[in-house]
Amino acid sequence: MHKQVVAGIDIGGTKIAVALETLERERIVARRLPTQVELGPDAILENILLSIEEMLAETDAGLSAIGIGCPGPIDIERGLALSPTNLPEWIDFPLVETIEKRFSVPTVLDNDANAAALGEYFYGAGRGFRDILYVTISTGIGGAIIIGGKIHHGVGSSAGEVGHTIVKSDGLRCLCGTYGCLETIASGLSIARRMKEKLSTHDGKSFENLEEITAKTVVEAVTNGDELARSIWDETIKYLAIGIGNAITLIAPEAVVIGGGISSAGDLLLEPLRFQIRKNVTMLPVEKVEILKASLGSESGVYGALMLAHNALKK
Amino acid sequence: MHKQVVAGIDIGGTKIAVALETLERERIVARRLPTQVELGPDAILENILLSIEEMLAETDAGLSAIGIGCPGPIDIERGLALSPTNLPEWIDFPLVETIEKRFSVPTVLDNDANAAALGEYFYGAGRGFRDILYVTISTGIGGAIIIGGKIHHGVGSSAGEVGHTIVKSDGLRCLCGTYGCLETIASGLSIARRMKEKLSTHDGKSFENLEEITAKTVVEAVTNGDELARSIWDETIKYLAIGIGNAITLIAPEAVVIGGGISSAGDLLLEPLRFQIRKNVTMLPVEKVEILKASLGSESGVYGALMLAHNALKK
Repeated sequence: MHKQVVAGIDIGGTKIAVALETLERERIVARRLPTQVELGPDAILENILLSIEEMLAETDAGLSAIGIGCPGPIDIERGLALSPTNLPEWIDFPLVETIEKRFSVPTVLDNDANAAALGEYFYGAGRGFRDILYVTISTGIGGAIIIGGKIHHGVGSSAGEVGHTIVKSDGLRCLCGTYGCLETIASGLSIARRMKEKLSTHDGKSFENLEEITAKTVVEAVTNGDELARSIWDETIKYLAIGIGNAITLIAPEAVVIGGGISSAGDLLLEPLRFQIRKNVTMLPVEKVEILKASLGSESGVYGALMLAHNALKK
Repeated sequence: MHKQVVAGIDIGGTKIAVALETLERERIVARRLPTQVELGPDAILENILLSIEEMLAETDAGLSAIGIGCPGPIDIERGLALSPTNLPEWIDFPLVETIEKRFSVPTVLDNDANAAALGEYFYGAGRGFRDILYVTISTGIGGAIIIGGKIHHGVGSSAGEVGHTIVKSDGLRCLCGTYGCLETIASGLSIARRMKEKLSTHDGKSFENLEEITAKTVVEAVTNGDELARSIWDETIKYLAIGIGNAITLIAPEAVVIGGGISSAGDLLLEPLRFQIRKNVTMLPVEKVEILKASLGSESGVYGALMLAHNALKK
């Protein structure tokens, strides 16, 4: 064998990304597989492991460690997936044990938001900062905190859940069970729902029927000057600036890195968000906190999984 | 000289606490001085240093390091007090430099909330936990975060300011400049203000005149069954549970330690607060997060200052 490598696996509800990297953090090969949820966890994991074996053979490499990012809830200590919403059959599924049996190398599991945060911190927009808050705004809103290069896990390995901080007392009930979470206003699903509600009582020139409305089409309508869409967007920014601003007031990170589908709105999101956050955060020199778009796109998770594997070798 | 000791100094707007402790963390002597703000920073500091010299002579001890807790804002790196509200003449006052010139030992400065948090973590209610959030509710609301035994400073050394997280969008303007901060509802001053506002339109049997109303008398009135005071208190708990609950959702600490004058309400505060926080925090096993009263009372700051001195010796 010519070189030792680590493998990173990022498991999502629709796609799985796998990559190999040298111990010097040089990417040598990567693949994407469809998740095919209907196959169930054993067959899906088998496909992943076969891919890794093929990639190792193709590149004539020896495996040193594996890192995995997986949607939560997970049990990090025991290496289990605990029936993530997107992977309903993965009930107490022993990811780490199964993989370690196959490859006999250190294998580390973390949740997808933590992995993505780690990816952005070491390979992406978060490079060079001491502490970052990572926020992902897509269907839902997730988050993670990196302090001095390490994931801050906290109780239940659940720190950083900015989407489930309460930003509107007496707000709507969230899927999580409480009321007025940021996710009930500013997630992709909530943006689309609020637009539909508004159109049921007003006319929006950019929408012919309610079916076509998604967060993406709302963003397009804002760009095209639709006033109703603009009012929905302004309210979205207002509450994002409260939730993310509160997180800055508490954690005082050097940077906030924003990923997920909604972050592709770019400056339409970031410019008013920076402006409003500077009004909301008063107890620290907020101009020293960078508010940045994630730079690795859908790759942040697999980069983070690679970093989990590198870290496993340092222990 | 028979033993080496460290000194802790806790500077407050009305009182200053000074203590000496052996390197094995055994308290040997302590004093309290009135601050006498009118004397100005040079004379006040001189009084503190004379006290330390007397205590060292009395106990026949040699000094190894000094820790100082001081109201913010401060500049930790440069060792300056930057005109704290309670100490208006302390403008860029070089605390650390002046003390190091006098004693020629390592001297470390931190803000009062960070020092108190460190005190509770190593000597008080926070012992035995990995990470804690410390919240002090008195005239204002302060906070600090200890992660793995270390103060989490963050940008501007300002992390943990739970009192200035926004808990009521479109709420009142806070002294800090933004709107709807927890401090505008749940600080001692705000509790008293809200009670006075309520009494201007209702009758409260426990209060004969508005002048006597303080957070302490509101708490007494709640205990005595006054319904208006109860409604003010319930609302206070509601917003404390949003602010502290949001901090738990983000930081996921093993314990929240609550100090400051309002914490002397004891179970009247803690029981409903625990109940409501358990409703608000859904993303982690919240039953594993202890909500505790600080146990060192007005001593937490000087204990923390001693710990700052011990830590200075480890570097």
